[in-house]
Amino acid sequence: MQNIIIASTSTVHGSGYLAYILDELASFYKDTEEILFIPYARPGGITHDAYTAVAGKAFEKIGKTVRGIHEFENPIAAIADAKGIFTGGGNTFLLVSQLYKHEVMQPLREAILNGTNYLGTSAGSNICGLTMQTTNDMPIIYPPSFKTLGVIPFNINPHYLDPIEGSTHMGETRETRIKEFHKFNTLPVVGIREGSWIRVKGDQITLEGAHTARVFEHDKTPYEIPTGSKITFS
Amino acid sequence: MQNIIIASTSTVHGSGYLAYILDELASFYKDTEEILFIPYARPGGITHDAYTAVAGKAFEKIGKTVRGIHEFENPIAAIADAKGIFTGGGNTFLLVSQLYKHEVMQPLREAILNGTNYLGTSAGSNICGLTMQTTNDMPIIYPPSFKTLGVIPFNINPHYLDPIEGSTHMGETRETRIKEFHKFNTLPVVGIREGSWIRVKGDQITLEGAHTARVFEHDKTPYEIPTGSKITFS
Repeated sequence: MQNIIIASTSTVHGSGYLAYILDELASFYKDTEEILFIPYARPGGITHDAYTAVAGKAFEKIGKTVRGIHEFENPIAAIADAKGIFTGGGNTFLLVSQLYKHEVMQPLREAILNGTNYLGTSAGSNICGLTMQTTNDMPIIYPPSFKTLGVIPFNINPHYLDPIEGSTHMGETRETRIKEFHKFNTLPVVGIREGSWIRVKGDQITLEGAHTARVFEHDKTPYEIPTGSKITFS
Repeated sequence: MQNIIIASTSTVHGSGYLAYILDELASFYKDTEEILFIPYARPGGITHDAYTAVAGKAFEKIGKTVRGIHEFENPIAAIADAKGIFTGGGNTFLLVSQLYKHEVMQPLREAILNGTNYLGTSAGSNICGLTMQTTNDMPIIYPPSFKTLGVIPFNINPHYLDPIEGSTHMGETRETRIKEFHKFNTLPVVGIREGSWIRVKGDQITLEGAHTARVFEHDKTPYEIPTGSKITFS
């Protein structure tokens, strides 16, 4: 049974790394003491070691140890052996490039489909969708493909942002960008605001956390769903 | 001699399409009555015809006619024959995909290097750099490469945006994104604010328009340059 948390962000403004979701994670990871961390997205170019230490410090508070996938000689075996996995945020283009380079995209997909508990934040959430094409990140590296894990039947837009009222900036709003995506792709997109997450338990997919989410279906007017909603597309 | 205008945006808030730069364009395109328009980036998925009509309406005010590249049976010949070219904004991933698909990336580069007057706005400016890797756009389509025209020795970040003071949003600022780019790439990046443009005349590259620009060099602290500055990197 799939067991996934797909979070908009690792950190909400004014609180520590993962602090807003730590109670949830204590229960989510209750059957494992060690979590395999995938630091490939490395925000701001932080090292794998430094990033793993950040995750480790947060999980220490709920009695878990964290090991970075880069510490293992065989990352494929590390994924197969893990009882809990966490992929942190950063740059999605970099994350996807690294997952392909280390040949772990498919093993990670299989582990999640086989029931290994998986937490993603930001870029680590983006890759749960069928493609990374609704990321907000800058294409700092050319990945061999935009295809990602596909462990949910839609795409994610993390850090979802409403148009800023009174803005004079002429760059596209998030909603406009997702509409452009839908000119060439029919996949639904769920925009998750910071402080919210999607919980997958087998076939049940639910919105959790502080905010409504904005849903974009091909050729439909976007709409809001309240927290607690089941997410289904017919 | 290269003759290029690389503009942050087609439109500044509260005025019409190209209105803020139309006087400059009247002088820039003084030797041609017809402008070849490349509508491939099509913002919001607008059709090539509709987008070309938008450009045509603006250029009518300075007595120019506009023809879309999609109207020509042979787009390569259309580029070679043009005396003035304009590539509009929209989605850079789409624009680059289409330039490769129609095999006009190299012919366009050659035309510009041979002195054909070229105006780019937004996505059409992004492609002037060596790569499209400092675009702000969503990867709605997978291009065969991120390499672009390379008619200037640096990359462009159009619609450059300062961090929003007091923002509680945890998504990366533009500056953070460009810093991440510099973890993997050494090319300088010039962030152009809306209402400003870069003017290339042969070897001379100058910042023009309303605002300072922000310059990001690898391993250096970002800095501002005033309008009228020469842009050189040693």
